[in-house]
Amino acid sequence: MTYCVALRLDRGLVFAADTRTSAGTANVAQYRKLYYWRQPGERVIVLLCAGNLSVTQSVVSLLNEQLVQEPLKGQSTLFTVASLYRAARLVGDAVREVRRVDGSALEDTNSGFNATFILGGQIGAEAPRLFMIYPEGNFIEATDDTPFFQIGEHKYGKPILDRVAQPSMRLGEAAKMVLLSFDSTLRSNLSVGLPIDLLIYERDSLDVRREKRIEQADEYFRKLSGAWSDALRTAFAKMEEFKV
Amino acid sequence: MTYCVALRLDRGLVFAADTRTSAGTANVAQYRKLYYWRQPGERVIVLLCAGNLSVTQSVVSLLNEQLVQEPLKGQSTLFTVASLYRAARLVGDAVREVRRVDGSALEDTNSGFNATFILGGQIGAEAPRLFMIYPEGNFIEATDDTPFFQIGEHKYGKPILDRVAQPSMRLGEAAKMVLLSFDSTLRSNLSVGLPIDLLIYERDSLDVRREKRIEQADEYFRKLSGAWSDALRTAFAKMEEFKV
Repeated sequence: MTYCVALRLDRGLVFAADTRTSAGTANVAQYRKLYYWRQPGERVIVLLCAGNLSVTQSVVSLLNEQLVQEPLKGQSTLFTVASLYRAARLVGDAVREVRRVDGSALEDTNSGFNATFILGGQIGAEAPRLFMIYPEGNFIEATDDTPFFQIGEHKYGKPILDRVAQPSMRLGEAAKMVLLSFDSTLRSNLSVGLPIDLLIYERDSLDVRREKRIEQADEYFRKLSGAWSDALRTAFAKMEEFKV
Repeated sequence: MTYCVALRLDRGLVFAADTRTSAGTANVAQYRKLYYWRQPGERVIVLLCAGNLSVTQSVVSLLNEQLVQEPLKGQSTLFTVASLYRAARLVGDAVREVRRVDGSALEDTNSGFNATFILGGQIGAEAPRLFMIYPEGNFIEATDDTPFFQIGEHKYGKPILDRVAQPSMRLGEAAKMVLLSFDSTLRSNLSVGLPIDLLIYERDSLDVRREKRIEQADEYFRKLSGAWSDALRTAFAKMEEFKV
C-alpha cells in the first residue's frame, strides 16, 4: 500500500509520499513514489504515485522517454507543455498507454489495473495547480473548497486534514500537518512506512528549494510525533467523561 | 456503510453503533444495528452488525426465532447457551444458514455476501467476553493486547483507539473515547451517520443499566465534539513548524 498527500495553498504546494511497497505482508520493499521535473525559472512538476508499482513506474518511464527522444511533430512533453492542465493530460495519456499494454493481463488478477496519481507544480506565469489523476486517465483539480488530495491508504490520516487544512496556511505549518497525517497512518497501518519524501514548493520560485527524506531517526518528526501523542492524551484526559 | 466499535475492559464492556444504511448515496435510511438480549441476573448478550442489511437482519431474526420456538432437542439458544463462546457459535451458525439461502444470489452482485458482527456480554459467572464474527461464521476473541473490535468504516476512528484504549480505562472514559472515534468518522465519511446507539455494560451487573441513543442535538456529544476540535487545533498550533 501507499500513502501520498498534497496541498494547494496560497503560498505554494506541499507534497509527501511514503516509500513502502508490499506484495502481501511478506514481500515488503522501499521505493520512491515522489518524482519531480524542473527547469529552474520556468517550471516545476511533481508527481506522486499510488497503485501497482509496475504501472506507476511504467508511466514515469514513458514520461521520461518523451523528454530524451527526438520529439515527434506535435508531441508535447513535461518540458514543453504550456500549462499544468496539459501536463495532467500527458500523464493521463501515459496511464492509458500502460493500460493498453498491461491492462487485460492485470484485470485477470485480484489486484486489477490500479494506479492513481497526484500531479502538481507551476509552469511560467500560471498559478500553482494540483490534479488527481485516476486509473482511467481522467483527472480532477484541487480548489480552495478542498485544497488537498490524498491517494492510497488515505483514511487514517484524513481527520487531521479535514479539521486543519486551509489554503491560507504557511508552508511550514502545512508540512507539520502533513507529517501528523502520516504519523496517524503509520501508527494504524503497517503497509505504509517510513521514510517519507517531503517536497515543499514555494509559489513563483519555479524551483525545488526544499526537499527532505524523513527517516525513522529524524529528530523533528520524532519530536512532533511524541508531542502530538502527549497533546492528544492530555486533551483527552481533560475532557468531561460520559456519565455512566 | 456502518461504523461499530466495542471494547472489553476490566470494568465491563462498551458498545457503540451508528444507524445509517445506504444503498449508494441516494437511498439513505436509519436502522438500528445494536441488538441485545438479557435475562437479568443471568446473562446479557449484545450484538453489533455491519454489512448487507438483509443478511444481518436475517441473522437476528433466526436468533430470535430460536427463542420463541418450541426448542428442538439439543438445540441451544441465546438464552440457554452456557458461555459466550457458544453464543458466538450460534451467531456463526445463523450467518451460515443465511448464506445457504441468499449467498449465491448475493455473490452474483457487486456487493457480495457481506456481514460482520461484534458479539459481547456476560453469562453467569464467566468473565465478560467479546468476539468478532466474520461473514464465514468463524470468529476471534478480544484479549488485553487489543481490547477493542471495530467493524464497517473503521479507519477514520482507529487512530484515537490505537493511542488511548487500555483495559484499565473507566467505563465513562471509554465511552468518551468511543464517541470521539465516532466524531472523527462522522466528519470524514458521509456513509456513517447519527444517531449513535451506545450501551455500557458494567461487569457482573448481568443487566443493561446504561443505554443511550445519541442524537444530533445531544448536549454532551456536541460539547465533546467542539472541545475536541478546539483541543486539536490548539495542540496543532502549539507545535513547532517544519522549517522551510
